[in-house]
Amino acid sequence: MSIEAHSLTATEALRLIEGGGLSSREWVAACRERIRLREPEIRAWASLDDTVMEAVEARERRGLGPSIPIGAKDIIDVLGMATMMGVEFHDPRPAIREGGSVSILREAGCVFMGKTVTAELGHRHPGPTRNPRDLGHTPGGSSSGSAAAVADYMVPICLGTQTSGSVIRPAAYCGVLGYKPTYVDFDNTGILANAPSMDTLGILARSVDDIGLMRRLLLEEEPAGEVAAAQLSTLRFGILRAPPWETAEIEVRDLIEGFAGTLSATSNGGARVVDIWLDEEVARLAALHRLISGYEFRRSIAFERVHHRESLSAVLREGRLADGERMSRSAYRDALREAGELRARLAQAFEAVDILITPSAAGPALAGLESTGDAAFNSAWSLAGNPVITLPLFTASASGLPIGCQFIADLGADDLLLSTSKRIMNLFDPATV
Amino acid sequence: MSIEAHSLTATEALRLIEGGGLSSREWVAACRERIRLREPEIRAWASLDDTVMEAVEARERRGLGPSIPIGAKDIIDVLGMATMMGVEFHDPRPAIREGGSVSILREAGCVFMGKTVTAELGHRHPGPTRNPRDLGHTPGGSSSGSAAAVADYMVPICLGTQTSGSVIRPAAYCGVLGYKPTYVDFDNTGILANAPSMDTLGILARSVDDIGLMRRLLLEEEPAGEVAAAQLSTLRFGILRAPPWETAEIEVRDLIEGFAGTLSATSNGGARVVDIWLDEEVARLAALHRLISGYEFRRSIAFERVHHRESLSAVLREGRLADGERMSRSAYRDALREAGELRARLAQAFEAVDILITPSAAGPALAGLESTGDAAFNSAWSLAGNPVITLPLFTASASGLPIGCQFIADLGADDLLLSTSKRIMNLFDPATV
Repeated sequence: MSIEAHSLTATEALRLIEGGGLSSREWVAACRERIRLREPEIRAWASLDDTVMEAVEARERRGLGPSIPIGAKDIIDVLGMATMMGVEFHDPRPAIREGGSVSILREAGCVFMGKTVTAELGHRHPGPTRNPRDLGHTPGGSSSGSAAAVADYMVPICLGTQTSGSVIRPAAYCGVLGYKPTYVDFDNTGILANAPSMDTLGILARSVDDIGLMRRLLLEEEPAGEVAAAQLSTLRFGILRAPPWETAEIEVRDLIEGFAGTLSATSNGGARVVDIWLDEEVARLAALHRLISGYEFRRSIAFERVHHRESLSAVLREGRLADGERMSRSAYRDALREAGELRARLAQAFEAVDILITPSAAGPALAGLESTGDAAFNSAWSLAGNPVITLPLFTASASGLPIGCQFIADLGADDLLLSTSKRIMNLFDPATV
Repeated sequence: MSIEAHSLTATEALRLIEGGGLSSREWVAACRERIRLREPEIRAWASLDDTVMEAVEARERRGLGPSIPIGAKDIIDVLGMATMMGVEFHDPRPAIREGGSVSILREAGCVFMGKTVTAELGHRHPGPTRNPRDLGHTPGGSSSGSAAAVADYMVPICLGTQTSGSVIRPAAYCGVLGYKPTYVDFDNTGILANAPSMDTLGILARSVDDIGLMRRLLLEEEPAGEVAAAQLSTLRFGILRAPPWETAEIEVRDLIEGFAGTLSATSNGGARVVDIWLDEEVARLAALHRLISGYEFRRSIAFERVHHRESLSAVLREGRLADGERMSRSAYRDALREAGELRARLAQAFEAVDILITPSAAGPALAGLESTGDAAFNSAWSLAGNPVITLPLFTASASGLPIGCQFIADLGADDLLLSTSKRIMNLFDPATV
């Protein structure tokens, strides 16, 4: 069993462990072996923890529950491991304190296999990671290694972070699930800040149940078993036609429109699907996202800007930092206020619809490793703070690369988003989900 | 000159340096000498940087501007110095990255003399610091060392932080100025989080001009000289009669009411002073502050809670952490939403008044070092996010201890708050301000 244990979701593995068909050691060992075999090609990891099996054994000795092997994006402090943040110049000494979410997960049984590659400082300049679905393509970013490690069955789950589209896009490009919860649902301490008004810890995994599991652990809620599947007949979906809809590849739009037909088919439960515009709200949120995140990013990485400016990439120095320099404080405060007003307008929109549907990205993963793609379909929702998930529903006909579909719920409606995701995955793959 | 340079405000010292009557080295050396003489009694410092003079000299060699000696509360990461956070168990290795605000100040010429004593993890369990105005009394907390170091003329300025009343109360108890800006005006990265929804970097100093100086440096705005003094005749003040007004000592209330007479006296410019209640808003904000900060604190210090629980004080384990355990996530989200509504109601109230006046604390510093006092007069404004300042206007008749007066402005009205403070300090001490 353990030979293929690396390919199990955490929920599947935990069920096997409970039934005696698998041990935590076998599971973790299988993931480590998978990493050993595949890492030279994929390069998903910034560093690996060679003592992880000792942590598993220590939990066994103390009679604690099973160990869950996960990875953490390398802008998240994990005790005893370096946090290199995707740059060469950071001090490689191990962290002496760790993120609140890391400690919460550790106490709940997670063991950290290592730190996954991040784009430079959680921004855009890429690391060495390749897309496991086609090595010549970008895995997306900035949670590049997290998406690739999960997609390549090295670990069932990784932590990522999103300020613009850094969870949704790499998950979609690599063909896995990516989830960004409602803003501030998860603790952000011990994580490199980019733009604190929107920085959000997210989860990359291969099943809705695994995302639900991590959500419950991070919220320190009682485990409530697997995610229940929503009844589609009770749900109102809206295909978001606001820009940048028209910029998505035709195939992506066709796939989403076809999916809308699937959702509303009587045989599938007959959900109601309508078109939604919200053009002004989405466009303003995207514009404000650029202003606010630029202003905050410039401050948040003041250490690197002041002490290591010459070591930063051109895309960071001349792009993001320049955005921040152009923004006055009064314009920043005005932008924050307007974002608050737009959040209120979105909340009104969600009185008429339960779940919005949009592309996760304009198309499948870009060829080459130079660009991690752009966040045009994501940044408005990062600023708005809504929970979003990308599900690997489609495949590009020409390349065979995965294409994600993004679902957005009202602020705080994370449970609805996950239960809906469960039902949708059931429609596509009823045998395994 | 340099013998007494430690007693200058930064604005005074910089003016002397510009005129050639003082050098940065002399200024910093005078502060160091003052610390050497007084620290054994005051115990304001968690650690001192013995290399600070090298930083001053390096700035001189590079032809940069004057150096400004300041201190930073020991929950703020400063490159090359340990961050002990007021506990014994933290790893004493030096920080390998520092707070964004620290780097911004460093680039602007500030040199960090050392780290000032904080109560345990920025909360309540006190450190060893004594109140320089009477060694048998608490300096307040949690920015205990920052207040004492400024009050005792060891440095002109210290950074502190406030989640409940951790800047205003120690500043008031020690007889200095304490300023908490509008929420998120200053970058918070590299600072131990307590409750991110309200954590705010603040400034302790001995003059309004020094606070204005630090504000401009932290905002990376062009220096605009000293703070202009507002015209009192144009201002509408409100004495806040909402609870906990009645819990303040009678002398404190009498002093504030007498001060209201001073403000409105024609000879002083004749400000308008009215009574303001806002009972429901202030009471609800204080109640929500406890709930929200408890929930967030429990997550933010998950590292200490999970790895070092037995080393935490009883007041932390059984007080704050228990608050957090009692709070459900849905109640937390409801509380955040209600806080947002109350902020909007306060903004309406500030249409009728420019500056609210309240006690900074119920009375002068408590006797003994066991308790740092309570935040009853502060916590509502920490959650609301309004800019607040405490000015050392009064003296207790029996003990001679300082009594602060707290001023509160509308969100974003920090410039008005500082210019008003300048005029008020002029009223009390026209010769020196």
